Amino acid sequence: MKTAFIGLGGMGAPMARQLIDAGYDVIIYNRTTAKAQAFTESGARVAATPAEAAAQADVLITMLADERAVQTVLDGEDGALDALPAQGIHVGMSTVSVDFSQQLGARHSERGQYYIAAPVFGRPDAAAAKKLWIVAAGGADPLARVRPLLDAMGQGVIEVGTDPVLANTVKLAGNHMIGAMMEALGESFALVRKAGLPAEQFLDIINRLFQSPVYENYGRQIAAERFTPPGFKLHLGLKDMRLVLAAADANGTPMPLASLVHDRMLGAVSRGMGELDWSVVARLAADEAGLSQKGE
Amino acid sequence: MKTAFIGLGGMGAPMARQLIDAGYDVIIYNRTTAKAQAFTESGARVAATPAEAAAQADVLITMLADERAVQTVLDGEDGALDALPAQGIHVGMSTVSVDFSQQLGARHSERGQYYIAAPVFGRPDAAAAKKLWIVAAGGADPLARVRPLLDAMGQGVIEVGTDPVLANTVKLAGNHMIGAMMEALGESFALVRKAGLPAEQFLDIINRLFQSPVYENYGRQIAAERFTPPGFKLHLGLKDMRLVLAAADANGTPMPLASLVHDRMLGAVSRGMGELDWSVVARLAADEAGLSQKGE
Amino acid sequence: MKTAFIGLGGMGAPMARQLIDAGYDVIIYNRTTAKAQAFTESGARVAATPAEAAAQADVLITMLADERAVQTVLDGEDGALDALPAQGIHVGMSTVSVDFSQQLGARHSERGQYYIAAPVFGRPDAAAAKKLWIVAAGGADPLARVRPLLDAMGQGVIEVGTDPVLANTVKLAGNHMIGAMMEALGESFALVRKAGLPAEQFLDIINRLFQSPVYENYGRQIAAERFTPPGFKLHLGLKDMRLVLAAADANGTPMPLASLVHDRMLGAVSRGMGELDWSVVARLAADEAGLSQKGE
Amino acid sequence: MKTAFIGLGGMGAPMARQLIDAGYDVIIYNRTTAKAQAFTESGARVAATPAEAAAQADVLITMLADERAVQTVLDGEDGALDALPAQGIHVGMSTVSVDFSQQLGARHSERGQYYIAAPVFGRPDAAAAKKLWIVAAGGADPLARVRPLLDAMGQGVIEVGTDPVLANTVKLAGNHMIGAMMEALGESFALVRKAGLPAEQFLDIINRLFQSPVYENYGRQIAAERFTPPGFKLHLGLKDMRLVLAAADANGTPMPLASLVHDRMLGAVSRGMGELDWSVVARLAADEAGLSQKGE
Repeated sequence: MKTAFIGLGGMGAPMARQLIDAGYDVIIYNRTTAKAQAFTESGARVAATPAEAAAQADVLITMLADERAVQTVLDGEDGALDALPAQGIHVGMSTVSVDFSQQLGARHSERGQYYIAAPVFGRPDAAAAKKLWIVAAGGADPLARVRPLLDAMGQGVIEVGTDPVLANTVKLAGNHMIGAMMEALGESFALVRKAGLPAEQFLDIINRLFQSPVYENYGRQIAAERFTPPGFKLHLGLKDMRLVLAAADANGTPMPLASLVHDRMLGAVSRGMGELDWSVVARLAADEAGLSQKGE
Repeated sequence: MKTAFIGLGGMGAPMARQLIDAGYDVIIYNRTTAKAQAFTESGARVAATPAEAAAQADVLITMLADERAVQTVLDGEDGALDALPAQGIHVGMSTVSVDFSQQLGARHSERGQYYIAAPVFGRPDAAAAKKLWIVAAGGADPLARVRPLLDAMGQGVIEVGTDPVLANTVKLAGNHMIGAMMEALGESFALVRKAGLPAEQFLDIINRLFQSPVYENYGRQIAAERFTPPGFKLHLGLKDMRLVLAAADANGTPMPLASLVHDRMLGAVSRGMGELDWSVVARLAADEAGLSQKGE
Repeated sequence: MKTAFIGLGGMGAPMARQLIDAGYDVIIYNRTTAKAQAFTESGARVAATPAEAAAQADVLITMLADERAVQTVLDGEDGALDALPAQGIHVGMSTVSVDFSQQLGARHSERGQYYIAAPVFGRPDAAAAKKLWIVAAGGADPLARVRPLLDAMGQGVIEVGTDPVLANTVKLAGNHMIGAMMEALGESFALVRKAGLPAEQFLDIINRLFQSPVYENYGRQIAAERFTPPGFKLHLGLKDMRLVLAAADANGTPMPLASLVHDRMLGAVSRGMGELDWSVVARLAADEAGLSQKGE
Repeated sequence: MKTAFIGLGGMGAPMARQLIDAGYDVIIYNRTTAKAQAFTESGARVAATPAEAAAQADVLITMLADERAVQTVLDGEDGALDALPAQGIHVGMSTVSVDFSQQLGARHSERGQYYIAAPVFGRPDAAAAKKLWIVAAGGADPLARVRPLLDAMGQGVIEVGTDPVLANTVKLAGNHMIGAMMEALGESFALVRKAGLPAEQFLDIINRLFQSPVYENYGRQIAAERFTPPGFKLHLGLKDMRLVLAAADANGTPMPLASLVHDRMLGAVSRGMGELDWSVVARLAADEAGLSQKGE
């Protein structure tokens, strides 16, 4: 099974690495060539264009920052969409909108290709440690065929049905869960700090109560107010909250907490925090409470 | 160390039971006598009034539904406050306001008594399984003296300082964390259900991501829309959110997510859901999205 | 100056009537022909297609329910866009997104045509009474040329610059102001009603304080809970709030109150209220407070 | 009818002046004596204590900053409560909580006195121009007796029933309406400013649409970002929003918009804006959007 992998960013690079390490025959494309070259040592081939990569592949994997990037790779000059052979399977792992996923499904179908949506949960360090969770949806047959590839990239694959948009919806809802947790932590830390208790001490209690590595990791970062280097940039987080609300709007689900987190993130990006880690959103409650930043 | 235990509700009864099982000399008072009588078999004595219980005690533990109940027990007819001997320690384990806790501290101090705030995290089943987390604050000396009693009632005791209000603030912030989680789950379940995915399937993913028993337990209940019998009644949850916002208002911390959860709970109580489990608040997002109740 | 007028809905019909009454040479197109025929008696000509209408016009006015309708009229079969002569001016009076307006401007420009955005404030009765306020933006020259037409349709025209999107932004912000007022009235009415005061009595006070016909008209409707026949349908109001938030998102302005009103409307549409007057959104606060509907 | 007037702040001073100008026999008390002395020239007598003022009065008017101030005047050393003769009428014009008003009613009743709640709408300049609106509630008989006094202080008196708390609820709901308007203006100004339109130009449109002097006055101030000298201080506005939410909480009315405005104000006070005019709350939307302050 020949696999084209497009997108070697913070997430894509370690994911492609997992495939290569697992012995798959991988051809790589990345907009900036330098990143791709680094992979040649480990036996991966490098394509000069998305089309070149896709033309030789049974499976095309894309892992890019946003819809626009996916669109460019598929439809731009020397794009992958028309190059991918019939019966080829496109595994879209980027976080994209429900709408976009739906359109992709239709366009691949017109070409006799298949589309599997397989967004992931986890940050770059999780990708490098093969600790990603992958949520996949799409036709039963093509999904079964790409399943070994997915298994090679994460600690678990969760299949949620035959309609790709289900996987995208689940990914967005999952990000909403994390956004909500960050807001809750931010408010709680502000409350206890104003009462005289260090955030770290409250976090210790939260860790015992929730016993969750997600609370532990995010909580540590937020308590320490350490938002750089970013594991996931705020402007990308904002993009995701926008997609959450678009999905909610389209299917008629009011999500006031998602609106709150979105509005927080939007304001933070407007004030120049877009390149920080998205957990900086939890810092806003402290700002509003008049608490000075650590180290200031 | 003679211990008076006042309040044998859903939480108090199993907590008192733990003390008795651990071999402590416990004298019990409960407003409705029947509940207290059930304890005599295991060797506990029963007092006829709060004063009678407190008068014989080195330590007075109160575990009641709200401030009003605590006030009645302390200041009402045959109240415990003036009956507790000097050097006696009042361990207040109910969830009360920061204000109330502050006043209690002062009033005990005037009488040469001590006040330890020691609210708990956990529901009745956790109390019965000795799985409570207890957050304690107060003078170092009296806290050291009552520490064995606290250890006998939970899986862990977390000391947060010498000012009792710190423990109350932490307890309230903790409840806010749970309220936020319930709102987030409610919205996410509504979103995925409208997209065609059962809530249970999304919960399965959340459990893998968060790996938290709190998400697991609340999530199961909310996904199944099973809000009775209540582990913690909504009208008591509303009371707690009110205390969260009062603490936030007093110390100058805007908590928009706490406001959202409070407003949700207030509306649900107004519409007759006060006696259901407080996780019913997560059902409101489904209501607003036009999703019918399970089994309807 | 020959004018093509497309869209004879609740707003468009009385607006077109004003132009005819003012003596302008108007050619009309409407998707359902019956409505257009009614205008022939007053001397208007009726075109069979958007293209036929536009081809004969110096000025093309569109007043339609949403972007999709505008798009169909311009780009659909026998569409108006390519038919409008060079130097022709398209006056878009529908409430559309900032994005859409921007694209329209570019597309007209490519064809040597002009685009003026001129959305209106007011409901059908205001249109019939020539009481609309029209907010207009676009090139100085074409705007000066169509200004008499605009003057003939409203009580006042407010020019806000040469970039069409400014007019759209102002229109959306204005609708946000009205949405906010409805939410505020809904909450206040609920509060005083639960205290024992009829909504009407509170409205009387509000009218003296604000002295605003907008409060008076909306307030009367909301106090009486009379949401049918609709002056402006809720699902269109929801569409507008969606455009408000899209504009806010695109230019980086968090608008939590707009989010609140949007979420309210989204929920109400999900529960089947989309065809009622949009002021029904103010009824939701009463629902949440457990107040029964008038007449129930 | 002898009238004691207590409280010569920004509001009280011009109100007392109106009574004196109307020929009433007024005895004045103010905590800081200097302010009271200024009134002696116009024939008012000055009392040394609240008790001295009340003892000689048929009617006791209080116009103070908050509940605590009212409580001090009534119950503090040489307080007015016990000094007011039986049959005496206390007209409470301060903005106080529903709870406090209820308690006052009961306490006056125990003493054979009467209590009328008569809070006002309007700022100091309106008080000076006799343009206040006064909302009054209380027993029909005592209200009829004090009615001429109220008429002398405002442009209109609106009676809302025999239960004093109704007047307080109406006052709070009215302030909520103003708070909502400020938030809406703040968000709209931010949106249009980021799109390139000056706030003043949008305000001009809003003035034509709403035709309301309240929008005009507040809008001018907010558009100019002129928050000092304060007509009504933010920390007092926050106090009022707190009372709105307390009333809502007590009678079971969720008011998410009031929560939003409260949280905004709380944050602004925490960041040191408490002494500015309360309309500064509308500036926060601009802050969040990254807009710099005028003149910066």
